[in-house]
Amino acid sequence: MTPLLFIEMTAVVVSALYGILLAARKGMDVMGVFTVAFAVAFGGGTLRDLFLDRNPLFWIGNPHYPVIVFAIALLSGLIVRHLGRIRPLLPLPDALGMALFTLTGTAYAADAGTTAFVAVMLGVITGTFGGVLGDLLCNELPSLFVPSPLNATCAFTGAWAYLGLLHLGVAERYSLAAGIVIIVAFRLAAIRWNWSLPAVRDPRPPGASPGPDGKS
Amino acid sequence: MTPLLFIEMTAVVVSALYGILLAARKGMDVMGVFTVAFAVAFGGGTLRDLFLDRNPLFWIGNPHYPVIVFAIALLSGLIVRHLGRIRPLLPLPDALGMALFTLTGTAYAADAGTTAFVAVMLGVITGTFGGVLGDLLCNELPSLFVPSPLNATCAFTGAWAYLGLLHLGVAERYSLAAGIVIIVAFRLAAIRWNWSLPAVRDPRPPGASPGPDGKS
Amino acid sequence: MTPLLFIEMTAVVVSALYGILLAARKGMDVMGVFTVAFAVAFGGGTLRDLFLDRNPLFWIGNPHYPVIVFAIALLSGLIVRHLGRIRPLLPLPDALGMALFTLTGTAYAADAGTTAFVAVMLGVITGTFGGVLGDLLCNELPSLFVPSPLNATCAFTGAWAYLGLLHLGVAERYSLAAGIVIIVAFRLAAIRWNWSLPAVRDPRPPGASPGPDGKS
Repeated sequence: MTPLLFIEMTAVVVSALYGILLAARKGMDVMGVFTVAFAVAFGGGTLRDLFLDRNPLFWIGNPHYPVIVFAIALLSGLIVRHLGRIRPLLPLPDALGMALFTLTGTAYAADAGTTAFVAVMLGVITGTFGGVLGDLLCNELPSLFVPSPLNATCAFTGAWAYLGLLHLGVAERYSLAAGIVIIVAFRLAAIRWNWSLPAVRDPRPPGASPGPDGKS
Repeated sequence: MTPLLFIEMTAVVVSALYGILLAARKGMDVMGVFTVAFAVAFGGGTLRDLFLDRNPLFWIGNPHYPVIVFAIALLSGLIVRHLGRIRPLLPLPDALGMALFTLTGTAYAADAGTTAFVAVMLGVITGTFGGVLGDLLCNELPSLFVPSPLNATCAFTGAWAYLGLLHLGVAERYSLAAGIVIIVAFRLAAIRWNWSLPAVRDPRPPGASPGPDGKS
Repeated sequence: MTPLLFIEMTAVVVSALYGILLAARKGMDVMGVFTVAFAVAFGGGTLRDLFLDRNPLFWIGNPHYPVIVFAIALLSGLIVRHLGRIRPLLPLPDALGMALFTLTGTAYAADAGTTAFVAVMLGVITGTFGGVLGDLLCNELPSLFVPSPLNATCAFTGAWAYLGLLHLGVAERYSLAAGIVIIVAFRLAAIRWNWSLPAVRDPRPPGASPGPDGKS
């Protein structure tokens, strides 16, 4: 098993664990837990594959991944009882997984001939959309969007660094390694010191009447 | 009209009726009712077709289906006034529809060369995602995910039975019939005796602070 | 720059502004604002392209559009402070944008060989789904679905007018112009006189117990 495959597998497992945390807070049954875990683990990559018209989808082409997530979901009743001990171990593999998902998404998009900005966007989507989808399935305002430790911003920065190094002629493997280090370090620092972006606030009072068009 | 086409048509009509029930509870207008009815009736099949890259989508290839759903939505003001009489008739055709959607989804995926587990998953998605999407459009926690009479579990069981029988050399039509009977009987029994899966619960008190990563 | 491209660009900008209004009301950070603005501006066209299997997606093929939306999101802190002055200017370009998105969606679908009803549906989806997606990302019941000034109905009417005129042999450009005028005039009149469709209401009291199947 290559290092990259090991990281990807870890990313899938950790994403699934986050999905279980989300679903367990809502008191879902095991089918709901599996669905949310599946959405968190595969949502970003699926959207990337659909947007780039890649076939087969990565979890159809790697069919052991859904089986792993299913096994984790079956054990979720056991897992949630040991959350206290598992939780502190999660940020590092989670950051690694986001880094890898982001950079592979960026690389696939660039290979498909998109512009650099679109490639970075598809990378960020790959790295973060799973978490957004999990929140939506649990009927929560996505935590990615409200001020909280930087997440999409780390992915965004690392993806640009990766493309920039490639553009300067640095070899693929070193550009990838640099991108991973940047995303992971930036993300762990953001969690440690609680860095966040300021909220963009509508200055009108919350109870203000909607606009004349009924849309806003 | 073949029996299968008749069941599929019934499944579309019954799914649309469920969509109307959902939308009417939110006081939507006729466009909202149509959208929700459309999403419930076609959401699962659309996701399956996108995931398997099947073209055209089944409701674009069977363009009378959207017209039927539109006609039902136009009549929804009338229909909701007779819900009391319509409601008790729904569980059987609904179970039949879910069975058929599930097994055709499984068959399409297996034909496309997926593994058995992925084929079953795509079958369950085809059979149940429409209801999830309807709940999300109505801004509700999907009832599929919380303990309630077994639904995805019935689809899951029937899809494995169908593939297992095929694998044992049973003819397509008998395998399909057996899968339908299993799903419908299991589902009706689950409704009748209120079988449900236990909730997977996070043991921490509901007001506990989110994790250190701001994500969970 | 042709008139159509100018309208399309305007539509993208105005859609992004609506997204910012939505996101700012939730106190999102700039990444959340960008995501919602992106979803409102490109959601409808993306769904249309996925449903019709068009490649590349229109914002991947026109990669300056995402850059424009990103720039608007970066300035959103500034923009929300001037909302009072911007807001009254929005209904006309918004109606123009919806008209153009709707009619191009209808035209693409008809070119792909769909029936007229499916083409109109895909047109309405293109014109209105962005707003629905923005509401869902902000965890709101989509305002498109509840009684409010007509929106999808205007798109629906204009798309049928466009296809009807084409069918009668009127030249493409005149059919398009007529469709745009109908949608814009209908939409502005609906806002001005607050036309809306009646709600379809479930006559049971709101606290009534769910149906026996746990689904409705």
